[in-house]
Amino acid sequence: MSNEAASAPPTVRARRLGLYTQHDPIVLMREDCHVCRSEGLAARAQVLLSAGGRDVLATLYQVGRDLLEQDEAGLSEAAWNLLEVEEGAAVSVRHAPPLASMSSVRRRVYGQRLDAPALAAIITDVAASRYTDVHLAAFLTACSALPLDVDETVALTRAMVDVGERLTWDAPAVVDKHSVGGLPGNRTTPIVVAIAAAHGLVMPKTSSRAITSPAGTADAMETLAPVDLDVKAMRRVVEQEGACLVWGGAVRLSPADDVLIRVERVLDVDTEGQLIASVLSKKIAAGATHVVLDIPVGPTAKVRSDDAGVDLGARLTEVADVFGITLRCMLTDGAQPVGRGIGPALEAWDVLAVLQGHADAPADLRRRACILAGAALELGGVAPTPQGVSLAEETLADGRAWAKFQRICEAQGGLRTPPRASLVRAITATRSGRIVQINNRTVARLAKLAGAPDDKAAGVELHVRLGDEVAKGQPLLSVHAEAPGELAYALDYAAANPEMFDLEA
Amino acid sequence: MSNEAASAPPTVRARRLGLYTQHDPIVLMREDCHVCRSEGLAARAQVLLSAGGRDVLATLYQVGRDLLEQDEAGLSEAAWNLLEVEEGAAVSVRHAPPLASMSSVRRRVYGQRLDAPALAAIITDVAASRYTDVHLAAFLTACSALPLDVDETVALTRAMVDVGERLTWDAPAVVDKHSVGGLPGNRTTPIVVAIAAAHGLVMPKTSSRAITSPAGTADAMETLAPVDLDVKAMRRVVEQEGACLVWGGAVRLSPADDVLIRVERVLDVDTEGQLIASVLSKKIAAGATHVVLDIPVGPTAKVRSDDAGVDLGARLTEVADVFGITLRCMLTDGAQPVGRGIGPALEAWDVLAVLQGHADAPADLRRRACILAGAALELGGVAPTPQGVSLAEETLADGRAWAKFQRICEAQGGLRTPPRASLVRAITATRSGRIVQINNRTVARLAKLAGAPDDKAAGVELHVRLGDEVAKGQPLLSVHAEAPGELAYALDYAAANPEMFDLEA
Repeated sequence: MSNEAASAPPTVRARRLGLYTQHDPIVLMREDCHVCRSEGLAARAQVLLSAGGRDVLATLYQVGRDLLEQDEAGLSEAAWNLLEVEEGAAVSVRHAPPLASMSSVRRRVYGQRLDAPALAAIITDVAASRYTDVHLAAFLTACSALPLDVDETVALTRAMVDVGERLTWDAPAVVDKHSVGGLPGNRTTPIVVAIAAAHGLVMPKTSSRAITSPAGTADAMETLAPVDLDVKAMRRVVEQEGACLVWGGAVRLSPADDVLIRVERVLDVDTEGQLIASVLSKKIAAGATHVVLDIPVGPTAKVRSDDAGVDLGARLTEVADVFGITLRCMLTDGAQPVGRGIGPALEAWDVLAVLQGHADAPADLRRRACILAGAALELGGVAPTPQGVSLAEETLADGRAWAKFQRICEAQGGLRTPPRASLVRAITATRSGRIVQINNRTVARLAKLAGAPDDKAAGVELHVRLGDEVAKGQPLLSVHAEAPGELAYALDYAAANPEMFDLEA
Repeated sequence: MSNEAASAPPTVRARRLGLYTQHDPIVLMREDCHVCRSEGLAARAQVLLSAGGRDVLATLYQVGRDLLEQDEAGLSEAAWNLLEVEEGAAVSVRHAPPLASMSSVRRRVYGQRLDAPALAAIITDVAASRYTDVHLAAFLTACSALPLDVDETVALTRAMVDVGERLTWDAPAVVDKHSVGGLPGNRTTPIVVAIAAAHGLVMPKTSSRAITSPAGTADAMETLAPVDLDVKAMRRVVEQEGACLVWGGAVRLSPADDVLIRVERVLDVDTEGQLIASVLSKKIAAGATHVVLDIPVGPTAKVRSDDAGVDLGARLTEVADVFGITLRCMLTDGAQPVGRGIGPALEAWDVLAVLQGHADAPADLRRRACILAGAALELGGVAPTPQGVSLAEETLADGRAWAKFQRICEAQGGLRTPPRASLVRAITATRSGRIVQINNRTVARLAKLAGAPDDKAAGVELHVRLGDEVAKGQPLLSVHAEAPGELAYALDYAAANPEMFDLEA
């Protein structure tokens, strides 16, 4: 065999395994496969799969004789979708090339700051899925141990924008809205968009699905209308209605953020610089010019004190200025969940109640939405400051927001009725008293154990709020579930975590 | 279903998949499996597998209908071996419990130092395989961004000893030897052990296999004798011969180190505190009282300057003192590979040549081994300082070391003849000149591409050393391989990396 043979590595036949690994590209090959032998590939090697001009980095695991033929490469769904091959297509497999940008990560670990080209190289590799979890965790940890300064945050934000799609809109002002998160049931976005769009503001809203929470805005909206629109369909909706409420995943805005955020959630480190780059890169990529930012503050929210909220807002504004974005940061009450429902459909029912002006609609959700929509109306030049909130309330009261919301849903493919869970079980107070604390994190976990967000109807329905006096035996919340096992598991968790509600005698 | 059902999670049937993932415990389950549904388990969840009183943490991947029955859990070899179940045994699967020690890692990320209990909790979880790669990378990065201080290094070392086996020997002095590494072919250990044991010193040597290098001492020794001994067999050999040369993997000394080092190698961050804890924890666990430490210094070695070597030595000594270990640090020449062979069998041939006193045995390997063995003889009280080296040379010259080595090999199961590769191809100088630099890293990579350490006979045989004058067309090295594809791949790499040798006209 000549040296040329090494330049054109031998191939194996692609096989789709139906292996679901979330985002992980994985390839299975036989231990005695000729490519593993000739390339010297061992289990857990990072390999480069190539076919039809596409390259995909994957983790190799090896199997014995039962699962695959000797010349087959079994691909996980993530690898299969990235490689875009046909069953049986020839795929070459070789050692992954060295990751040059990791030398910058190592420099950052050892305390040196990174310039824009270094961060751009890292983010390019991140977006191309060249970083394993180990590399990603090292980068994020290094950026937490020595927090990103303003220059690094600006460079990181720009790098994250540059590796993805960037939308442009034919409008002088493009309004967007974001919540820093951590507050279950805080589903103001559909209401804010409906109010803003009812006044002719352009608001092409993309939202995320839940990663570790019981519901993202896209999950809740999906129970009301299709959200899985591509850029073309999204443009059509915005041109027609001035606004949309779609899932951002199909649009590929700031794809590096999607990769980083997964690992951030596992580590549960969430530093200011990363947060700012994450939020602003998505907004810049979406073409926003004016952004309303909801920063809930509370003992179990992401931001724990007003001071921290003010600092975060100042830092966000400083970076947003560099990109010509006008930012309005709103510190809001993050002491307890918002509305009654926690879970995709339960939150959608709360949104509907507010939009339809029901007498028993959750007042806190309504109030928060009007504060944020008011800011959007003022930013967009529709209402003079400080009359935005009253205009927002009026727009809800007279049905214009509800009418607009229905038109947006119709344009996205049709308004839907959210599902109701088949199993509902109340959890009652074991003693009487006044509710002085509700733990956002425990409530969120309970809703997830009940099946949210995968089971759209699953979640938690809160029956009490801070300050309420409850009697022993009175229902505090109801668990909604679709599967008996999940219901039981959730009830078990609730029983084991009575500190979810703090009652004062 | 009552709440009790949640306490006793439903089970699935274990199936051995023959899936090789290195150390990764992985479980595959059907998406429509009742446990996945009732527990709300999604792809890539960390899950706790329980059977027969054993718990194993694993990563869940999901599959469609082809690969598994609905009630089966397919286990990777790592998961299978840890769980110790029979085919078809009932295994319960639930969400992994929260990882309490990660809160300490997060504190360390944010710049706070950790006390001994916090480090002990982390290392206990690491040794129990509770940390994913993301968690491990965060811990290591945090300990690099803010380097471990002496107190932390001592606490980490002690924690790493405490989670594993600890050997004790009935001898006043137990000698050990370690090389900081990074130098291909630096296979002095078998020679040092043979010399020391020939003088009655107790030297129960455990060595590692290669992780990212072309050969570990255990890989090279395995071509000369069985090394896969358990603690009982190891004790028998040491009681009989005063020394052994076995693989440390079966003995479980400092198991947390084995986990951490994998991730360190991927990150290529190697900080002083981690290095010290890694080296000393293994020595303490092995029962050593006196340790000779080889610190090769060179431009492409792990330690790049004499100053760095002296600092590292001082720090190692400071920590070793706390544990009552007498340390002798030797800075050695790390400018080029040691001996001629790089790869398990090729290095073993070099060792044999030195032990058997061949006239053409590599002089540098012989010299290094005698320097280290001399220090061991002095530390162990056999020779007064500075007469250790000459006694070591004498012990080689008169055949006592070779006789002792053969007895040790026989006690371990029998002396073997290392294999020879079927394919050997020379790489020649493209021009004439004097060799002024040899890149340790490039040479090591070439040996690995040729198939080392998995193919025992594969690797690189160096024909030149620093300072040699070579003519155009003269062989610089030979690549030894067992597979034509690997040979071609290695030759291709050599052609693409001419800087492996720096020639001065």
